[in-house]
Amino acid sequence: MTPEPLTADAFAPYGDVLEATGQSRAINAGLCARFHDRARLDFGPEGQAGISIFQAECRSLPYACDLLERHPDGSQSFIPMSADPFLVIVAEDDAGHPTRPRAFLTNGSQGVSYLRGTWHGVLTPLTGPGLFAVIDRIGDTPNLEEHRLVDPIVIKGTP
Amino acid sequence: MTPEPLTADAFAPYGDVLEATGQSRAINAGLCARFHDRARLDFGPEGQAGISIFQAECRSLPYACDLLERHPDGSQSFIPMSADPFLVIVAEDDAGHPTRPRAFLTNGSQGVSYLRGTWHGVLTPLTGPGLFAVIDRIGDTPNLEEHRLVDPIVIKGTP
Repeated sequence: MTPEPLTADAFAPYGDVLEATGQSRAINAGLCARFHDRARLDFGPEGQAGISIFQAECRSLPYACDLLERHPDGSQSFIPMSADPFLVIVAEDDAGHPTRPRAFLTNGSQGVSYLRGTWHGVLTPLTGPGLFAVIDRIGDTPNLEEHRLVDPIVIKGTP
Repeated sequence: MTPEPLTADAFAPYGDVLEATGQSRAINAGLCARFHDRARLDFGPEGQAGISIFQAECRSLPYACDLLERHPDGSQSFIPMSADPFLVIVAEDDAGHPTRPRAFLTNGSQGVSYLRGTWHGVLTPLTGPGLFAVIDRIGDTPNLEEHRLVDPIVIKGTP
């Protein structure tokens, strides 16, 4: 499949797009706009929020995604620390199995936050340093389910 | 004053440097390194973590900082969404007043997290789009104290 542009509406069933669009309020004497509280965060009853740094290797298109994962105990948010697009692969759940995958490409000024339990591909930068801040649940449970795909999802580049 | 390079040791009294240094663990079949849980987050008993996007105007050096602020009810973390250095100004507290200010310059691959109640300057990008993800307390209190400086802190550029 070819990745779709990432928009808040299209992504809403899977999570939130973290970007400077829509309503904001001026702070710092008008020199900064605050787009307030943009993600449906959830760290579970026994967990707490943490910030980790991920350093990922860049991939290239076409990209074959053969593994999806989800975090049953919390949301997971990815903030790119460079202005580079990255690939976002998600899927719906059907009785514990991922189904109907979709692929999005960020515009270089967007992060994403996956809702608790949302099937998604691993971090897939296509260009840039591959450096991300990740806000997710810190807790005692494994908080990870993996599902290997018999038929990989192949993401094509734009022709 | 001239800004110091931002290092974890120098910044520790004020907060945490969010960067890909030190211990990590390999995830995603070895294609990603996770630098785990790098900030001392604190959202207070009645608050919760939120992610907001800040769009700040760039400043230039020399920069006169005449206002410091602090958040009595929670930590505040800044993740740059482009690989550009920004200025970080902090101060100690002396009976409710900021004192002994210090200025740091990030290296372009660093975010910062201010400890709850730490005096700091407003967001001050020097180059780039000025786009940041901010992780701070979402709650019902104002969570803001401001202190206007009679004598501004003047940050010089490198000669």
